[in-house]
Amino acid sequence: MLKKPFLLLASLTLISQSLLATPIKRSDQDIDKEVSHLLSKMTIEEKVGQMTQITLAVILDKGSRETGDGLVIDKEKLKKAIHTYKVGSILNSTATALTVKQWNRLIKEIQDEALQTPNEIPVIYGVDAIHGVTYTKGSTLYPHNIGLAATRNLKLAKATAKATGKELRATGVRWNFDPVLDLGVNPIWSRFSETYGEDTYLTTQMGVGVIQAYEEDGLENTTAVASTMKHFIGYSDPANGKDRTPAYIPDIVLWEKYLPQFKAAVNAGSSSIMINSASVNGIPVHGSKRLLTDLLRGELGFKGLVVTDWEDVIRLHTRHMVAESPREAVKQAVDAGIDMSMVPKDFSFYELLVDLVKSGDISEERIDKSVSIILKLKYQLGLFDNAYHESEAAQNFGKAEYKNLALKAARESITLLKNDNDILPLPKNAKILLAGPTGNSHAPLNGSWSYSWQGDVEANYPENEKTILDAFQRAVGKKNLITHTYAGFNNEKNYDVNGLIKKAKKADYIVLALGENAYAESPGALDDLNLAKNQMALAQAALSTGKPVIVVLAEGRPRIIKDIVGATKAIVQAYIPGSQGAQAISDVIFGDYNPNGKLPYSYPQFTGDFANYDRVYLSDIQQLTPGDMSYNGYKPQWPFGHGLSYTNFAYSNIKLSSKTLKGDNKLNISVKVTNTGKFEGKESVELYVSDLFASVSPAVKRLKAFKKINLKAGQSKKVNFTISKDDLTFVNPELKRIVEAGEFTLAIGSEKINFHYQF
Amino acid sequence: MLKKPFLLLASLTLISQSLLATPIKRSDQDIDKEVSHLLSKMTIEEKVGQMTQITLAVILDKGSRETGDGLVIDKEKLKKAIHTYKVGSILNSTATALTVKQWNRLIKEIQDEALQTPNEIPVIYGVDAIHGVTYTKGSTLYPHNIGLAATRNLKLAKATAKATGKELRATGVRWNFDPVLDLGVNPIWSRFSETYGEDTYLTTQMGVGVIQAYEEDGLENTTAVASTMKHFIGYSDPANGKDRTPAYIPDIVLWEKYLPQFKAAVNAGSSSIMINSASVNGIPVHGSKRLLTDLLRGELGFKGLVVTDWEDVIRLHTRHMVAESPREAVKQAVDAGIDMSMVPKDFSFYELLVDLVKSGDISEERIDKSVSIILKLKYQLGLFDNAYHESEAAQNFGKAEYKNLALKAARESITLLKNDNDILPLPKNAKILLAGPTGNSHAPLNGSWSYSWQGDVEANYPENEKTILDAFQRAVGKKNLITHTYAGFNNEKNYDVNGLIKKAKKADYIVLALGENAYAESPGALDDLNLAKNQMALAQAALSTGKPVIVVLAEGRPRIIKDIVGATKAIVQAYIPGSQGAQAISDVIFGDYNPNGKLPYSYPQFTGDFANYDRVYLSDIQQLTPGDMSYNGYKPQWPFGHGLSYTNFAYSNIKLSSKTLKGDNKLNISVKVTNTGKFEGKESVELYVSDLFASVSPAVKRLKAFKKINLKAGQSKKVNFTISKDDLTFVNPELKRIVEAGEFTLAIGSEKINFHYQF
Repeated sequence: MLKKPFLLLASLTLISQSLLATPIKRSDQDIDKEVSHLLSKMTIEEKVGQMTQITLAVILDKGSRETGDGLVIDKEKLKKAIHTYKVGSILNSTATALTVKQWNRLIKEIQDEALQTPNEIPVIYGVDAIHGVTYTKGSTLYPHNIGLAATRNLKLAKATAKATGKELRATGVRWNFDPVLDLGVNPIWSRFSETYGEDTYLTTQMGVGVIQAYEEDGLENTTAVASTMKHFIGYSDPANGKDRTPAYIPDIVLWEKYLPQFKAAVNAGSSSIMINSASVNGIPVHGSKRLLTDLLRGELGFKGLVVTDWEDVIRLHTRHMVAESPREAVKQAVDAGIDMSMVPKDFSFYELLVDLVKSGDISEERIDKSVSIILKLKYQLGLFDNAYHESEAAQNFGKAEYKNLALKAARESITLLKNDNDILPLPKNAKILLAGPTGNSHAPLNGSWSYSWQGDVEANYPENEKTILDAFQRAVGKKNLITHTYAGFNNEKNYDVNGLIKKAKKADYIVLALGENAYAESPGALDDLNLAKNQMALAQAALSTGKPVIVVLAEGRPRIIKDIVGATKAIVQAYIPGSQGAQAISDVIFGDYNPNGKLPYSYPQFTGDFANYDRVYLSDIQQLTPGDMSYNGYKPQWPFGHGLSYTNFAYSNIKLSSKTLKGDNKLNISVKVTNTGKFEGKESVELYVSDLFASVSPAVKRLKAFKKINLKAGQSKKVNFTISKDDLTFVNPELKRIVEAGEFTLAIGSEKINFHYQF
Repeated sequence: MLKKPFLLLASLTLISQSLLATPIKRSDQDIDKEVSHLLSKMTIEEKVGQMTQITLAVILDKGSRETGDGLVIDKEKLKKAIHTYKVGSILNSTATALTVKQWNRLIKEIQDEALQTPNEIPVIYGVDAIHGVTYTKGSTLYPHNIGLAATRNLKLAKATAKATGKELRATGVRWNFDPVLDLGVNPIWSRFSETYGEDTYLTTQMGVGVIQAYEEDGLENTTAVASTMKHFIGYSDPANGKDRTPAYIPDIVLWEKYLPQFKAAVNAGSSSIMINSASVNGIPVHGSKRLLTDLLRGELGFKGLVVTDWEDVIRLHTRHMVAESPREAVKQAVDAGIDMSMVPKDFSFYELLVDLVKSGDISEERIDKSVSIILKLKYQLGLFDNAYHESEAAQNFGKAEYKNLALKAARESITLLKNDNDILPLPKNAKILLAGPTGNSHAPLNGSWSYSWQGDVEANYPENEKTILDAFQRAVGKKNLITHTYAGFNNEKNYDVNGLIKKAKKADYIVLALGENAYAESPGALDDLNLAKNQMALAQAALSTGKPVIVVLAEGRPRIIKDIVGATKAIVQAYIPGSQGAQAISDVIFGDYNPNGKLPYSYPQFTGDFANYDRVYLSDIQQLTPGDMSYNGYKPQWPFGHGLSYTNFAYSNIKLSSKTLKGDNKLNISVKVTNTGKFEGKESVELYVSDLFASVSPAVKRLKAFKKINLKAGQSKKVNFTISKDDLTFVNPELKRIVEAGEFTLAIGSEKINFHYQF
């Protein structure tokens, strides 16, 4: 493989990049040698520069917004960043999307400058391509993670990541700030849709799969990008529900539910990790040596790049109040173990860290560790071989198959929550009244990081991308469709309930497209999880007509709709289904597709009653009257794993290879699943394990395996699972993962069986 | 003091009890000697019996309810409990109230039996007299703790406890399961009203004061009762908001906010402690050696009696699933450190523990420790001297001064939340429409543990006790009062809004009496903190009339009323004000009393946005739009400490004795407070401390002192406080309470001043 003298390569890249046709795979040892050679030539300033990441806006022409030519770089600002401050990384955060060509040019302009630095070190550019390539025109956007989790289809989730990685690499960007491994346990949190839901096992499976998809080809290949596990750790359950605010999660819970997915992702080889902006139990994670060094580097053995989130180093001083000065903030974060600071709007980190190293407050040895990791990743990604966009990558952009993939993913994510008397699918020759604010709009279907940060710029969406209205029109014809849709989510807006009632007279069915507008991060904050009052009023009006009402939800988090659930005939959860979401919704509503998504979270019924499905038994017990004990404490609107089909599946004949699992042996479980209905359909077969007694109160049940199968009407399949003692473990108060001998129950569908574990 | 041979005393009690006129004070050493002598004579069965507490129902005649003669004991059941199972303690939980005489007889009947056991050991009887003597006719009921906390008047809170202790002792009961030291941080929790609110310092002051009031006379005295600190620890913030369900509170928070009040209460000498029924961080507290032995006995040095809560030993097996059998449950609880099990409905604990000791699974030495503690408390309480009701105690029951005390406490608790354009006080010659479900009912004003467990038996309340309607009628005369009140809180009930609108035409003002019916413990569970919809509808109807609306809230927890706050002219928080609450409300509404209560909690505005006032700064920061950073994260409807007056108070001239606090020195702070309004009034002057930077993100501010003063119109007072380094401490991740050098801010009213702490 290694045909040229490697140590000379860096200086050759400038002239060789356009000539290199095939990626160069190097061994770890070769890269380490190269990194160490390079490091030996670097000044403290150059090293600190590598640890510095700025946002694109810092080098843009003032007032540069989208023009025919894309965003315009200010040459002087670029020179200042690259030469004066020796910046090693840039990230993207803009309100606009570029074409692939514009991206290629932007990257080239930056690298041209970077390669003129004394050691010719290319810049590494990072982007949040969290459900497709966010900031690029013509890219394909897939369902958000919460929807992918509902598919229970790991292969499908991996395929969307693979396609995203390819399209991202085509733009010239090789570092993706994805996937989110946070746990979706706090439905009011604005990034809930970025998670794979409330279950650790499901999150682990999906997260690791996505990481593999990004990186499995080898980072040097033009089909790969570096992944980022985020946000380490405990980010997703802020006490007041607001983004980037303090979480209070006891260690035993952190270790039990939040750590396994990071551990598995580290083992899967993820290249980088992004840190939780907030504090956990009073300590900002960016300043926690215990979490970043002892746990992440030590216990988990992570060797990749640790990058901060937005502005989080200085915030140790400005927001967390744990550092008395900006300088102290930098020292704390570097001491804790960060490698790269997403500064990102100035060069304060650079200046303070240079001073800290020169004054001896931080050793050069310490920053050498971080710089080595950064340089290593740049080598691995082939940036020293070719810092520009790669021509071989370009062919992977905009393939027709991506749209099919997006459709497939959207279809499999859609979750049928309610379908009284099989009212769905609707006949295509009926008169349909389509109403509601998500009915004729792209933003709610695509959500955050869709051609802009917030995803709410309707004009950014491709002209030929369908809204629900477009898809319905194509399905039933213009003459069968009456519409009452409104773009806009002003909570004060009256959606003309009288107009709806009038139009309903001519309709056989009312389909209400409700939910949320696009939002990302903090601006998506809510103070109340109830669905917006004006949407609830619209629904009440629809229900008052006596016409059958079907509700379609396009929402990143489960908004409370209790008051309309009873009278509504059918409810379809579409999550944030992406570019093909409208088509997928239409396919489900009109029976062109048999839905098979399963809720990846417990859909709450009340604002003041949350519990995850894996709660402990004690949570379920309430004495509701002095005389009567009740065991209904887990009472979501719909439980984790809920999801109907147009057909029915029956479970029978559960069998175990043994009634006792011993030591490190395996236990085989089989169950028969039969499609007893009239339609072909897919079913997620899920295996849950319950520990009956344990020294730490055990969860009522925990998901430990799932398989998605397809069954024709009348068809049966035997589904097999294997479990081992690893599936029986829990974290004890000493934060050790242990297994205890005793009785366990396995449940698959309606089937249950017990076995005994012994050492 | 000790005139008779003490060791013979036990056998003399039977004949001597009616002769003993003055209580006998014995030294700890004498009691220890006596206990150890007694212990040496006891069988394992007798010892385990002492550790067993049953509920009164177990020995009652089947079907015994209130009769002319009170509850009727079934002699055979009593004999079985006392002689067969050697039960050492009985507690009360009935739906009825007895007269003092009936109580006296009940106690006598039990003790007559107990004193016929071989070692003549009296029974200790315990009751939840949490705001006055719960189960006794003619007792005086005071505001619940949440209201007492609003008074910020420690002397007053102590006086209500002192009176309660006296009335309780008069019944023959000498053990009170009070006070609650749990923190009121979770407003949906049904026992919120039993707490002193969200602040640790306030809780500590109030809790310790109450314990002193109960015990300071010496337990042998007929004015004293044994207090019970409860519920150790972390009980009050269940994750799903329901009573007795799991809490997840990181140790650093547990130590910072939940432990200081128990530590102070132990130091104040509280005789007993009741354990949290739930689990904290996965571990049931009843099975936690770490919390009950290492922390409570070890670190806190508690030497008193550890009693379980209701049925909590067996629940380690039946609900917590940490014990594989009932026997294992008993072993775990005793190993963890409990002394007495509130079994309470059977004798399973006795049987299992006898077996555990006889089989050697638990040592006799271990149970000797517990039995010694129990016997010691019985000696301290003088039960061995006189096990019956004491004639000297009887005179302390039903004194007229208690009613005045109850009125004073209710008045000082009432908190004026809003008073637009000084609409309050109302003129007495105006036409008042009084409406709403708390307007003519006793239960909402008295709450839990008021002549029954739930407190909702309207018929149990004294005939001459006023409702708000009664008090208003007396204040303004029958002809000026129009009424629209409804007893009953059926959430489906329509409160006849049209009727209200009609009646409002003749009224000058509408006073809406809203809130909650009485409830205790689990049956008070809520799924939604919003005020009941039918009450909100009634309020909206009242507001629609255009007449000025005043809302009076009688509620144990802050129910969300955001939608009516804006248009309502005045809002009065009465909490659960007790027997004189109606009079106190009337006094405030019509200007016979100038309100001065201060909220002991942050009154939430939204269902999905809770924060305590002592949150960290990071909680306050939200980016509400992409461009704008917002610092309004603490946005309760009304903050902790809020409370208006009919006059105004101005703060000025804050002064420090030094700009630097060194080591163990003291810092004196003074501030001038002036009544700048037209009425005499009381003001709670509160001192808050802010640590500007700390190694654990510091609280925005923390209450560290308060003083209540009275000022005539125009009068000024200089108020002095002293602080030391103890007021600057926080708990670090190693769970040590430390102080760090640095800058601090002191705030009193509108005044602020900084100082520096150095070692």
